[in-house]
Amino acid sequence: MAVNLSPPNPAQLYPITGLRLGVTEAGVRKAGRKDLTVILLEPGATVAGVFTQNRFCAAPVQLCREHLAGGAGVRAMLINTGNANAGTGQDGRLRALKTCATLAGKLAVGSAQILPFSTGVIMESLPVERIEAGLDGALADAREDNWLRAAEAIMTTDTVAKAFGAQLMIDGALVSITGISKGAGMIRPNMATMLGFLATDACISQVLMQQLATQLADASFNRITVDGDTSTNDSFMLIASNKARHAVIDSLDSANGQALKAAMLAVAQKLAQAIVRDGEGATKFISIRVEGGKNQAECRQVAYAIAHSPLVKTAFFASDPNLGRILAAVGYAGINDLDQTGIDLYLGDVHVATRGGRHPEYREEEAQRVMQQSEITVRVLLGRGAAADMVWTCDLSHDYVTINADYRS
Amino acid sequence: MAVNLSPPNPAQLYPITGLRLGVTEAGVRKAGRKDLTVILLEPGATVAGVFTQNRFCAAPVQLCREHLAGGAGVRAMLINTGNANAGTGQDGRLRALKTCATLAGKLAVGSAQILPFSTGVIMESLPVERIEAGLDGALADAREDNWLRAAEAIMTTDTVAKAFGAQLMIDGALVSITGISKGAGMIRPNMATMLGFLATDACISQVLMQQLATQLADASFNRITVDGDTSTNDSFMLIASNKARHAVIDSLDSANGQALKAAMLAVAQKLAQAIVRDGEGATKFISIRVEGGKNQAECRQVAYAIAHSPLVKTAFFASDPNLGRILAAVGYAGINDLDQTGIDLYLGDVHVATRGGRHPEYREEEAQRVMQQSEITVRVLLGRGAAADMVWTCDLSHDYVTINADYRS
Repeated sequence: MAVNLSPPNPAQLYPITGLRLGVTEAGVRKAGRKDLTVILLEPGATVAGVFTQNRFCAAPVQLCREHLAGGAGVRAMLINTGNANAGTGQDGRLRALKTCATLAGKLAVGSAQILPFSTGVIMESLPVERIEAGLDGALADAREDNWLRAAEAIMTTDTVAKAFGAQLMIDGALVSITGISKGAGMIRPNMATMLGFLATDACISQVLMQQLATQLADASFNRITVDGDTSTNDSFMLIASNKARHAVIDSLDSANGQALKAAMLAVAQKLAQAIVRDGEGATKFISIRVEGGKNQAECRQVAYAIAHSPLVKTAFFASDPNLGRILAAVGYAGINDLDQTGIDLYLGDVHVATRGGRHPEYREEEAQRVMQQSEITVRVLLGRGAAADMVWTCDLSHDYVTINADYRS
Repeated sequence: MAVNLSPPNPAQLYPITGLRLGVTEAGVRKAGRKDLTVILLEPGATVAGVFTQNRFCAAPVQLCREHLAGGAGVRAMLINTGNANAGTGQDGRLRALKTCATLAGKLAVGSAQILPFSTGVIMESLPVERIEAGLDGALADAREDNWLRAAEAIMTTDTVAKAFGAQLMIDGALVSITGISKGAGMIRPNMATMLGFLATDACISQVLMQQLATQLADASFNRITVDGDTSTNDSFMLIASNKARHAVIDSLDSANGQALKAAMLAVAQKLAQAIVRDGEGATKFISIRVEGGKNQAECRQVAYAIAHSPLVKTAFFASDPNLGRILAAVGYAGINDLDQTGIDLYLGDVHVATRGGRHPEYREEEAQRVMQQSEITVRVLLGRGAAADMVWTCDLSHDYVTINADYRS
């Protein structure tokens, strides 16, 4: 059902020297599904993350923040599906800590060197024993060329695994980038997506890592929405193994810094867009570009109002050019001094509305043609400034209702 | 399909002395449907209104505001369904003005004494000629006891007409209150609902009217949501014919003012809740009460986050107590200093979560029992203050998608 999203191309999932991934079936989710993943990092790797701004952030998110702040260095990430360990109070923290401690013992590192991640149902107790029992199998499975299986093992309602890679040369050295992500519902990241991991063997100074992670998330995962529900567990992790043979990059403004960031952003955007393409019940991939705003924030605000409107989303599902619904969403987006007579609307290449009213040459058959495509761009001109922004979303179909009425069964 | 919503009881739709209503089929909407309504007011009636805050407000909303501000006195309201006359630019204003002028001519009053209302598809040209051609039929039909037929004639995707009344004694005089409303989708009023008309023969000073209209809307239509889409055409009109035989009420703090406001609020809340009960595809009526906030605004903000979450709404549709979704919505509602360890959650009489985690004695079977009811109360305790607020909403079902994927056909 995913919109123009093929399974990952294994040839582009480059092993990252210094990183190994292992998966197993621990019985946390459903029978026959890999549900436990470990990512092992050699000493010297650096990590930065951005996490959900949901005030009900999950226990593992709390621990990730604390462990990263502690600065002991990350040696492993432990990811389970089937249980979000969110809305679980103090008990949830203790359970997440227990799994970190057990894995740390097996690796002979400190508990604070483990980052835990959980995704699945909220307000259920994390089955610690099953996870602990699965660790040996996951560790035995750990290999550098295991990205595809890791992408599959972190899926929940995803229908297609999400993994992309890129390579570039820096100072004559080959640098590889590989990332995986998951998520299909409860998607309106506010700092990051449900789960995203982007790794490179590039050498990046520690001080740059957080800056880079934030900038990448901001231009990729923070520009998507499926249903407007910001998850309790969103985490986007940036990992640098620092194994490539080039001088350390210590500025994003340098030529090398810019080249690396551009390559990583391309991968991050593919990962983020893949989540929308595989959005629960999605049949269309919709890019919403808002231009002519006073600032980027108000453009984003209007774009999200359109992207979250159930009426707009169902119209896309039906391929019905009932485009007044888009104008209505622009109108209630919260820009109090917006002048409707300055607004223009385009659907694909069709000029639908001008100065707040129907364009005199607009013919519905033309919009109908665009609506039937699987990739659609909505363009709104606010006519009050020079700023622009863009978000990506999908339509709202019967299958979204079906999936979320049945998710736990 | 409406949730516990019976057709109006004609015996409770009290004629309001000084007001007559007439309906006809003008061919604006679909064949065989009454789609044009006039409400005629005798001289001396006072009117106040609250209108959508959508910046793409419709042409009739703009004219209503201007005509009310002009202070010439309202002598008629003209309401069509089938076309919202929104997103129609300057041409839409001219068309709405033309219908006002034609009706004014027939009534020998000024154009500015007519208030126009439209509801239906956005960004289509208002068929002025059809409306003009229907006016004589509507005027010929005008009677004081015509509230039920007016309630039916303003319906669009509504499945049940919405009309309620009440009576009370003021200074020994019988006072009647009757109201009608419509709306089922694009419902998240921000000042008022799609269309609501509440009339009384009570004598109310003009200066009080706007205050009363705002307070009534704020505690009724401004507390409901179906899909979070704030319409371009929301209008709530308060009409006093001033025909009852009691002294003019000039303060809402007086005993008479309080009694009248309470009686009118009860009718307004029934009208507002009826819109939710008849929400597109609704199978459940859900009251969301948030307590323990620092102020009422943040309580309302949390309540709306829950009420708008597609994941929460689909869980209600499925009668699935996947209640962690409610906690997630509380967490992303936008209260940046919210402490999750202070949160309690009740579903009906079931204590689901305490201090941010699952309540130790919570058993899912109990929540399952509540979820299967058609009227459900969600109660969230924020644990940070003494304020409270409440909103009403419905679930998100397959029928919502079906209705909105097919609305125009």
